[in-house]
Amino acid sequence: MQIAIGLYPEFTALDAIGPYQVFTQVPGVEVVLCAAQRGRLSDDNGLLHLDIEHTFDEIAAPDLSLVPGGFVTRRLARDRDPIVDWVASTHATSTYTTSVCTGALLLGAAGILDGLDATTHWYAYDELATYGATPTEQRVVQQGKIWTAAGVSAGIDLALTLVGEIWSPELSQAIQLGIEYDPQPPYDSGAPSKADPEVLALVRAVSAEKEAAVRAG
Amino acid sequence: MQIAIGLYPEFTALDAIGPYQVFTQVPGVEVVLCAAQRGRLSDDNGLLHLDIEHTFDEIAAPDLSLVPGGFVTRRLARDRDPIVDWVASTHATSTYTTSVCTGALLLGAAGILDGLDATTHWYAYDELATYGATPTEQRVVQQGKIWTAAGVSAGIDLALTLVGEIWSPELSQAIQLGIEYDPQPPYDSGAPSKADPEVLALVRAVSAEKEAAVRAG
Repeated sequence: MQIAIGLYPEFTALDAIGPYQVFTQVPGVEVVLCAAQRGRLSDDNGLLHLDIEHTFDEIAAPDLSLVPGGFVTRRLARDRDPIVDWVASTHATSTYTTSVCTGALLLGAAGILDGLDATTHWYAYDELATYGATPTEQRVVQQGKIWTAAGVSAGIDLALTLVGEIWSPELSQAIQLGIEYDPQPPYDSGAPSKADPEVLALVRAVSAEKEAAVRAG
Repeated sequence: MQIAIGLYPEFTALDAIGPYQVFTQVPGVEVVLCAAQRGRLSDDNGLLHLDIEHTFDEIAAPDLSLVPGGFVTRRLARDRDPIVDWVASTHATSTYTTSVCTGALLLGAAGILDGLDATTHWYAYDELATYGATPTEQRVVQQGKIWTAAGVSAGIDLALTLVGEIWSPELSQAIQLGIEYDPQPPYDSGAPSKADPEVLALVRAVSAEKEAAVRAG
């Protein structure tokens, strides 16, 4: 089984590395990081630089594809970046097509979310709806072979859910124990419905600024 | 304020990227990834390759240091790898010295945990005790300026706790909302006390094998 994580410049690191950490613990699975081009690829902070070894062309038919999010997804979707074509073409033969956070917008741009429930980062629900999807406030949403996860950290929950589904609950539990995923956040502010209104307003304002910058680019 | 994440070949990706994702959202903070040498550095799966831009020599006095874990830490501690010296020397001037998972063994080898409570991956409690530390079954343990976190995914909780302490609870909550950290693992198997005995036995066996391979290296 081949699991491919499709990347692009300015992706959000944890969106990809959360699922990566889970999937790489499955015995016998081949996990591949790929992008449009080989070589250096930086995240949205411009601080984490990956050296990519595999191109989309080489990884043309993974069993499971996963795309992370990032503010830049709005521009990638608009400009039909190569990752959108990769999502569309791999979806034709995949067993699972999945996304984390605003990676769902890339699935939308690939035309595969029309009429389906899906989730994404809470800030991007309206944008997701423009692709014909029904934004759904759940951590992980399954519609047939398409699985979408909520924002950034939700990729860990997505990957553990998929391992339980594809292999077994016992394997998923073993991986959870191995990565000691017994989360104890110091605050309970991880969803708009739980956050203080002022905190929510702050994050909305910062997000609007980042989104505008991306759209202008 | 400079936050330095000290890396080494065969580190565990999520140990580093969890805190990285949190700290990089703090306005005005400088986050730096550094290692003994510039250039390519691969994780413990040999699948994720980073391009490192800063050496330990260049990042000699960060305000906050963080080291991730990995099975290889046993060998790094034994052989007094450069990262152990970096932990020791930066600790002399740091405001916070921190670790995730078996990164705590590097703090131990640097001689700064003697007589203190500390935590690490649950599998490494006995190893941690050999450095004079008292292994403590908590997600995050603070002893003065030294903060240690439990296994792998616990780095996210550590970083959010530190942001709440250093800056403000509101900023930490905003970052939690931004990364939608509202964890909903599909199973409740993230700690030895919670896992099924068979799952625990499996993870112990796999870990013992990996540890033996590292010690033989």
